[in-house]
Amino acid sequence: EQYLVKNQAEYNDAAKKLVAGDVVTLANGEWQDFEIKISGKGTKAKPIILTSQDPGKVLLTGQSNLRIGGEYILVSGLVFKNGYSPTGEVISFRRSKDDLARNSRVTEVVIDHFSKPDRYDDDYWVAMYGKNNRFDHNHLVGKTNKGVTFAVRLDSKESQENGHRIDHNYFGPRPVLGSNGGETLRIGTSHYSMFNSNTLVENNYFDRCDGEVEIISSKSGNNIYRGNVFDQSRGALVFRHGDGTLVENNVFLGRGKAHTGGIRVINRNQTVRNNYMEGLDGTGFVSALTVMNGVPNSPVNRYVQVDGAVIENNTIIDSKRITLGAGADEERSAAPVNSRLSNNILGGSSEGNLVDIDADISGIKFTNNILVKGKAAQPIAGIKRQAVAMTRGENGLVYPEDPALAKMGASRDLKPVTLDQVGVSWYPKPKNDDPFGGGKTVEVSPGEDSLTEAFVAAKNGDTLSLASGHYIVNRVMALDKAITLQGPAKQTGASIVSISFARPNLFEIKEGGNLKLSNLKIIGDLAPDSVGNSVIRTTSYPIQSNFEIRLEDVTVTNLSVNKSFNVISLGKSSMADRVTIKDSIFDKISGSIIQAAAETEDYGQYNADYVDISDTTFRNIDSAIANIYRGGRDESTFGPHFTMRDSTVENVGKSANNSSGASIVLHGVQYNDITDNRFIDSAPLKIIQTVGTPETKVADNKFENTPAPVVEELNYQGASRVDLSDNIFSNAVSK
Amino acid sequence: EQYLVKNQAEYNDAAKKLVAGDVVTLANGEWQDFEIKISGKGTKAKPIILTSQDPGKVLLTGQSNLRIGGEYILVSGLVFKNGYSPTGEVISFRRSKDDLARNSRVTEVVIDHFSKPDRYDDDYWVAMYGKNNRFDHNHLVGKTNKGVTFAVRLDSKESQENGHRIDHNYFGPRPVLGSNGGETLRIGTSHYSMFNSNTLVENNYFDRCDGEVEIISSKSGNNIYRGNVFDQSRGALVFRHGDGTLVENNVFLGRGKAHTGGIRVINRNQTVRNNYMEGLDGTGFVSALTVMNGVPNSPVNRYVQVDGAVIENNTIIDSKRITLGAGADEERSAAPVNSRLSNNILGGSSEGNLVDIDADISGIKFTNNILVKGKAAQPIAGIKRQAVAMTRGENGLVYPEDPALAKMGASRDLKPVTLDQVGVSWYPKPKNDDPFGGGKTVEVSPGEDSLTEAFVAAKNGDTLSLASGHYIVNRVMALDKAITLQGPAKQTGASIVSISFARPNLFEIKEGGNLKLSNLKIIGDLAPDSVGNSVIRTTSYPIQSNFEIRLEDVTVTNLSVNKSFNVISLGKSSMADRVTIKDSIFDKISGSIIQAAAETEDYGQYNADYVDISDTTFRNIDSAIANIYRGGRDESTFGPHFTMRDSTVENVGKSANNSSGASIVLHGVQYNDITDNRFIDSAPLKIIQTVGTPETKVADNKFENTPAPVVEELNYQGASRVDLSDNIFSNAVSK
Ligand SMILES: [Ca+2]
Ligand SMILES: [Ca+2]
Repeated sequence: EQYLVKNQAEYNDAAKKLVAGDVVTLANGEWQDFEIKISGKGTKAKPIILTSQDPGKVLLTGQSNLRIGGEYILVSGLVFKNGYSPTGEVISFRRSKDDLARNSRVTEVVIDHFSKPDRYDDDYWVAMYGKNNRFDHNHLVGKTNKGVTFAVRLDSKESQENGHRIDHNYFGPRPVLGSNGGETLRIGTSHYSMFNSNTLVENNYFDRCDGEVEIISSKSGNNIYRGNVFDQSRGALVFRHGDGTLVENNVFLGRGKAHTGGIRVINRNQTVRNNYMEGLDGTGFVSALTVMNGVPNSPVNRYVQVDGAVIENNTIIDSKRITLGAGADEERSAAPVNSRLSNNILGGSSEGNLVDIDADISGIKFTNNILVKGKAAQPIAGIKRQAVAMTRGENGLVYPEDPALAKMGASRDLKPVTLDQVGVSWYPKPKNDDPFGGGKTVEVSPGEDSLTEAFVAAKNGDTLSLASGHYIVNRVMALDKAITLQGPAKQTGASIVSISFARPNLFEIKEGGNLKLSNLKIIGDLAPDSVGNSVIRTTSYPIQSNFEIRLEDVTVTNLSVNKSFNVISLGKSSMADRVTIKDSIFDKISGSIIQAAAETEDYGQYNADYVDISDTTFRNIDSAIANIYRGGRDESTFGPHFTMRDSTVENVGKSANNSSGASIVLHGVQYNDITDNRFIDSAPLKIIQTVGTPETKVADNKFENTPAPVVEELNYQGASRVDLSDNIFSNAVSK
Repeated sequence: EQYLVKNQAEYNDAAKKLVAGDVVTLANGEWQDFEIKISGKGTKAKPIILTSQDPGKVLLTGQSNLRIGGEYILVSGLVFKNGYSPTGEVISFRRSKDDLARNSRVTEVVIDHFSKPDRYDDDYWVAMYGKNNRFDHNHLVGKTNKGVTFAVRLDSKESQENGHRIDHNYFGPRPVLGSNGGETLRIGTSHYSMFNSNTLVENNYFDRCDGEVEIISSKSGNNIYRGNVFDQSRGALVFRHGDGTLVENNVFLGRGKAHTGGIRVINRNQTVRNNYMEGLDGTGFVSALTVMNGVPNSPVNRYVQVDGAVIENNTIIDSKRITLGAGADEERSAAPVNSRLSNNILGGSSEGNLVDIDADISGIKFTNNILVKGKAAQPIAGIKRQAVAMTRGENGLVYPEDPALAKMGASRDLKPVTLDQVGVSWYPKPKNDDPFGGGKTVEVSPGEDSLTEAFVAAKNGDTLSLASGHYIVNRVMALDKAITLQGPAKQTGASIVSISFARPNLFEIKEGGNLKLSNLKIIGDLAPDSVGNSVIRTTSYPIQSNFEIRLEDVTVTNLSVNKSFNVISLGKSSMADRVTIKDSIFDKISGSIIQAAAETEDYGQYNADYVDISDTTFRNIDSAIANIYRGGRDESTFGPHFTMRDSTVENVGKSANNSSGASIVLHGVQYNDITDNRFIDSAPLKIIQTVGTPETKVADNKFENTPAPVVEELNYQGASRVDLSDNIFSNAVSK
């Protein structure tokens, strides 16, 4: 039977009576708040089909989802956008706990930014249950809330040894989540990791899947990951739990992006062969290749010793690190055994250390590997340093020119899957755009409300070019778009743009907001006498998208009408990808410059991934310049990162209202680089290190009449892991 | 000219050309996002009039406001609702900084819940500038965001000695804000407090104006407050700054409600006469009458010594406290001088202490006062204890029967203004309703999703009556209404309602939500393995309205799938008026029972005003039972309040994940009463006292194998102000 249904009632009528060979077609148009359930007994020859009148023309919006039970069901052509699932799953391969899908397929379906509004309200976009299901040629992009994008569940016998196939999907950009729970694909959980999943993940494209440290978390046995491309994706493919998994023919292209990794080996009888890694910047647990140390007699949720790993014919070039025996410590004391590394081409991105060796590697047999660039931490007989001329082949990958080396590294016939082979042809794949620029430039004249009016009229990407003079702003400028405000480049001292504002905030970042300011002066004199004003703050509504704030050649002064007047306040459930401050001046401020410490519960949720400060002067600041907090004990995130260079800090943090007692507070920040700064008459900077492997350098600074940095370790015990070199301390009374 | 305008364009055309005698009438209907500006030169005889086609039929909604400049402008008949002002004011008596209103009047205008969505985004509903303006017969109800409801501004010479008149207004319920900034009326600021305002506040009705400790903050000189009624309003009329103010003929009716106060005298030459106070529960700074100590040579923002106060012919009966020399400490060492207290009738609500004396009162001359009930802290010659028969007069107030006492206390012809004399007749005044009950009772049967379906269909005030059995809930129940869920009253052990839920939360409190649960068992076994689950949480969107949560005869168990699984989590910018837990059992919980500590910035914003626990058992709780945080250093709030009685606490707070190391954490809580409980094998309870005058009692408890309570004072120095009497400690190993 063919059913063309036009509304939910018609659908429900049809859905009740479906038998093998029936086709239900949803009419083109928007279907709001539609929770689709489909079940029934199709057959291999005559599946039950749910499809769209035209592919891409059926939009599921609002609170919608799809649940599939029964067998031989085929769903295609739907687009989920402008909404989110009211339950824990957008597409579920079960209709209810008792009706799991078998032999069913979802193909050519799009899920686009169909995320719960609250970043920490979790769900799965796809949850696969049952057996022998296929998910192929789908397009999943823009998951901004917590929870694995795609989960294969093994939580009952009916879902184990499942034979699922996940292929030719486009896993589009998943932004940095800023906490645990940002994996793109997970197969199994630690609870069920002793079971085999037998799932095939093939020819998928992972494009900028940056959610957290694991792109793929393989938590079950006997899976195959084959022919996938990982393009500029932060994190790694991790054999977290389960044995006997095969990873072959995959291509990892880091393109030099931070934290791009490759494959991390844990557990027994894993095979890693014929993979190609290039331009990977990751180190430690997200090295191009990581072989971990395990825990003797590991509990199910810890790390099983590597045993019987075969790692052969892989090409790793222009990458930063390979780590062997990673994570070795008192608990993880079981080094790899019965393993083999052979016929690999290994090349660093520099002549420095490529291969880190953190444990006993006598359990790994190295044969016939060549090191084409960089070096190993210790000489390894089976890794030979050799100058090799390499050229890029027609498949875009790099190979040795010498035919004698044809059997080394990845094979010549590796054909990375391309973007047009994955997902659907009728839905665009997102480009990597700078949020700023690309719009019009609008001239604005000084006066009362002139800026506000121009701001409201501006479109995403526009630049407001402010003529010299004074601007008074009587309402908060709410950013749901990327806007640049720029004054005239300072040629002469005369041409100055100054802005006063009469509300508690000058800007409020909302969903879609990005802000760039340059060549401006912002004055707090007209702000109301109220605690907690902030020049820029995030809205108190949830923000799904990460954002950027850039300040260049900006002066901010006289934020002093009441206490705690900040420059930038990042609130709960908001996430700045990057805050950049350069060539700027901050003076007479009763609060902080950057407050990014909204979490109280220590769930490990933070508010700014990168904070970069350079060539800036901070003077007479009551509270800490930056207060960045990342609590919790999980090791799932790369950030926060904090850099401050070539800046001057004078009379900062010394107010009685500054409860931290510090000029900068970095709590749980994973990367700290404070170099070449001058601190004068200021409170000490304070670094509290928690879990993970923070990289911390406080070097080449001058501290004048300023106490030494305070470094605290909450968990780690051992030799200091902070570089405090070449700082100069003096107690001379400054000018 | 008469203009009947139908849209904003027509209005703007008309507004350009207004001259004396013109009338602009807004057509009936909804005017969305309308920022009205009106100015021009009316005359006394021929004002410029802006009005509604029919009073109450013109609704200003969305982002709307009204700005009035010029002179002799009359505005009437408008209703602001379903929105908020995009600027810092809803009604402003200035069109711009240079165009202040003079001789203008706003009458019969309604502002109803026209509050900014974010509780801490501040504004004024009415800001009066200029001179000789009148605001009368208006209706202002339901301001939920920060900022004075009505502010008279003296910030330029043109607004001082202003002769404004504020009369016959209905100041309806203003809920507890939970931070500073909840005043209903403020005249002046400390900056301009040396100037006279000459403002008359007459015959207004303050109905449940509970925002914070000041109902009226008089911060300028020479004002008159006359004939106003304060009905069940928490807080006091405070002569905060400025001299020569007269307060007469006002009626304060506490009706026994907590924190209802009267008049607080500070500064010079204040007159308090012929006022009537009855049933006031306030003490300390919000006593029925408070005379403060001052600071010698006080800075403008501190407390000027009371000098020349005349306090006569007031009746204070059935009230808890009169405080003389209030606030005396090292700083506030200047006792009242040249003052007089005469012909007052003073009566306590009990035979205990009515008159507290905290400083030298030799500067107050007491003559001819009678004390009809209660006593004074020390004998005062001019206050004579006397049994006086009192009866209620026709005006509703109580007077001595004895004609010889006719000149004592408030005069017989005092006529309190009534509700129908204030505001407008055509808009209803809110009643004081319990959020629960009043709706239908709906029977619900056990099963999967049956509860969710009934819940979605339920209306505000409905009760869902659950039949015995097990309920599985697959989606979060979002409360934008008051709902009661009740199981069968426990007659037999057999009839039990149990609920499991598959999402991180069972309930989410949204705007308008209130929740009452009774006779239920809630089990966390199906919740996802994710950090930070909570049975009840507040939405991550701002919530304007305060809410209540009541648990009676509820069992909650097995919240243990991951760490930090709470029962109740109150998020940022949310405010529970009351959380009540009685006759309940909590067992095997990895988080807290009540988490109300969302603030990180110490702005003094808290999340629960009253938490009341009684007859409840807490067992095997990893984190603190309650974590309640009120930071900041202002003394503007009465809460939070915490009471726990007759409860049992066993094996609580001892998990390594419990960073507080406590079984209960009360930080900055203003009222702590922990009495008659039994603590067994638990972490200590922890009380951190900040500013204000917290009342703290931890008495008559048994502590078995549990450390003594930890009490910390952050600011206060002096003898302990915590009652720790009659606790019993034992280290016997319990069963
Ligand atoms: Ca993870
Ligand atoms: Ca106040």
